[in-house]
Amino acid sequence: MRRLDASEPGFAAEFDALVNDRRESTSDVSADVAAIIARVKADGDAALADYTAKFDRFDLDASGWSISKEECAAAYDALAPDLRDALNLAADRIRAYHAAQLPENRDYRDGTGARLGARWNAVDAAGVYVPGGRAAYPSSVLMNILPAKVAGVDRIVMMSPTPGGETNPVVMAAAHIGGVDEIWRVGGAQAVAALAYGTDRIAPVDVVTGPGNAWVAEAKRQVYGVVGIDMVAGPSEIVVVADNRNAPHVIAADLLSQAEHDPTSQSILFTDDAAFADAVAVAVDAIIPTLGTAATMRESWDANGAIVIVPTLADAIPLCDRLAPEHLELAVDAAEADALFAKVRHAGSVFLGRETPEAIGDYVAGPNHVLPTGRRARFSSGLSVTDFMKRTSFLALDEKSLAAIGPAAVALAGAEGLPAHALSVSQRLN
Amino acid sequence: MRRLDASEPGFAAEFDALVNDRRESTSDVSADVAAIIARVKADGDAALADYTAKFDRFDLDASGWSISKEECAAAYDALAPDLRDALNLAADRIRAYHAAQLPENRDYRDGTGARLGARWNAVDAAGVYVPGGRAAYPSSVLMNILPAKVAGVDRIVMMSPTPGGETNPVVMAAAHIGGVDEIWRVGGAQAVAALAYGTDRIAPVDVVTGPGNAWVAEAKRQVYGVVGIDMVAGPSEIVVVADNRNAPHVIAADLLSQAEHDPTSQSILFTDDAAFADAVAVAVDAIIPTLGTAATMRESWDANGAIVIVPTLADAIPLCDRLAPEHLELAVDAAEADALFAKVRHAGSVFLGRETPEAIGDYVAGPNHVLPTGRRARFSSGLSVTDFMKRTSFLALDEKSLAAIGPAAVALAGAEGLPAHALSVSQRLN
Repeated sequence: MRRLDASEPGFAAEFDALVNDRRESTSDVSADVAAIIARVKADGDAALADYTAKFDRFDLDASGWSISKEECAAAYDALAPDLRDALNLAADRIRAYHAAQLPENRDYRDGTGARLGARWNAVDAAGVYVPGGRAAYPSSVLMNILPAKVAGVDRIVMMSPTPGGETNPVVMAAAHIGGVDEIWRVGGAQAVAALAYGTDRIAPVDVVTGPGNAWVAEAKRQVYGVVGIDMVAGPSEIVVVADNRNAPHVIAADLLSQAEHDPTSQSILFTDDAAFADAVAVAVDAIIPTLGTAATMRESWDANGAIVIVPTLADAIPLCDRLAPEHLELAVDAAEADALFAKVRHAGSVFLGRETPEAIGDYVAGPNHVLPTGRRARFSSGLSVTDFMKRTSFLALDEKSLAAIGPAAVALAGAEGLPAHALSVSQRLN
Repeated sequence: MRRLDASEPGFAAEFDALVNDRRESTSDVSADVAAIIARVKADGDAALADYTAKFDRFDLDASGWSISKEECAAAYDALAPDLRDALNLAADRIRAYHAAQLPENRDYRDGTGARLGARWNAVDAAGVYVPGGRAAYPSSVLMNILPAKVAGVDRIVMMSPTPGGETNPVVMAAAHIGGVDEIWRVGGAQAVAALAYGTDRIAPVDVVTGPGNAWVAEAKRQVYGVVGIDMVAGPSEIVVVADNRNAPHVIAADLLSQAEHDPTSQSILFTDDAAFADAVAVAVDAIIPTLGTAATMRESWDANGAIVIVPTLADAIPLCDRLAPEHLELAVDAAEADALFAKVRHAGSVFLGRETPEAIGDYVAGPNHVLPTGRRARFSSGLSVTDFMKRTSFLALDEKSLAAIGPAAVALAGAEGLPAHALSVSQRLN
């Protein structure tokens, strides 16, 4: 864990180093991924079977390529009631928040009588990647599938590896709640390639979303443009801005809730009280050995954790903006949280006040937990229904409106050296 | 030009071939582009000067790196009055259409008392690429810069090569109207690298948009994720659906208005009348030699043009959807155009009725002319103000709302094996 103090000399350089810290995978998998994609394009299902045998030690032909809706319904029925209720509560809240995101169509006439507008449609098909093993999270299933469902996507395809043949019943139950149409037991770059290009068994989709390892992320980058993708995702991160009126162990747990995701995760505390900073650091060390994710938390906190002392909490906000964090907690009184939030420019999602732990947003708040990481909140946003939709603009002129604006188009086409553009307008003006 | 008839055997395969036609550059420039980007990251301005000397035969240090606001204002003042008026008309209409796109913030309380919402902010800085030479279009300057301006972007940077040192006064006038903050005389992949990573002279930006050649397009792909980009763009295309009550030479000019952009452009006519199809083909051949862009139109129409005869115009719409064209003209009576448009799912921009040539949309209609090509209207949309903005979701709970939804988060965190997530919620529940 790094400790920085904004009042000390050298702070600017130390904070620059924190901002520019690259925690993303530096392993260059692009050539491997390109080869896998080329093989899937050429050989289709045979390539999927080969890669699955190799990477997941699993025979698709012998054990079945897909998981049926009936199997998912059965997994749902077999769930412990409190977990089933929790998943349903999460799903209901996510649906409600995303339904309110549905964009409005526009259709209006301007002063010339020209009719203008824009109409939104869902994409025909969406593919959602769901990792197997350690990072198989039912919450991610809901967060990726429900926006597509709310958008009105007709066909939702889930790709999820089942290493060694093992399935995850909570993931299957979440797929049941989400209303997935197809689940294929295929993972890795080969799954992304199948979604983008299709195979005999698997029809291609239009948009691919969902988290994955370095191969999956690179495959999404490589098929971007053939299909839409959600984003380039990196390690998770949280910034907590807290005063000394919080209990240190409460803030420590908030920091650790990101640290337990992965050794590359990052947790940063900004506070205006050095003694409180010390107390949080002590609490972090006290909590770590008590939880099952101790090793991951220890590694993440030691390598990437930071505590930054600032003269006032307002001074933290421009520094936070430079980090443009995925998650930002403002653990202060409600009115002060509002005042600080008003000055925030760059963050994926913000959690206001002392009673709003970030983990609530991972599961049941309603807003999407798929958020920009690695300073990308400077220019990108969390997953939303519009990632599964597209907008068609339209225009209808009559003789009057064409007469009003057509001559300007002719003049500009002339200036650009495009005579057929000019002709297509001018011949209608007479 | 290919001629297809939906009533003939073999049509399905022929239409499949048309849909799957790849007109995009197959030259693999990715290694060259990666080397240019690496050099700019390492050597900054020196790399830009070297590449500019090599590719644009132009000495940046001797002749000046940038074009000043004063030079742009002078170019605007020197413009012929009708062209100045045309640019201003276009700018006013583009501004008005895009201002109506500004997204609304959300801030509400749900039944548990939880406060939820989303707030939009502009990115801090945007970079717009403007090609030099043949494809230097002032209309593209307006179409890229005005949405950024309307979004509220503080710093708008234009990168435009000036091969041999030559500047384009109409492009400079458009930059003046748009309110560009900086113009650098740098082009190619090196310009995109400078925008993404910054140099001593040029501060980095958050979003890069604008058209360019294969090197520029590949550079945008490679920096995607470091910055936001508008889209992967390919050759332009138009689909015209027309009945036999149009004048053949009018429809022919509409088809040619795309064909004149580039030999790789594509123009396709759908009609329900074989004799009308013949008449349009004759008119195309008659118009081509009369215009200054004859060679480009001839090459594009011969290689990529198509006429498709359908039993009824309604039959054309599902075929159009498979093409998901950048531009779609429905050149029929207004009521029929509305009925056909209601069935369209995939198109970048649609032009309704007999008095709405697509070229109007290139210049003065108001909607953006930066649109998805190469079937990407299946999943992506034209450039808009939201490409220069991002959304921050937020959440504020109190004791009551935390008590209502917190236990479900604890249950789900437990099921996902994330005890620190559970702890950060549960310790606040007591």
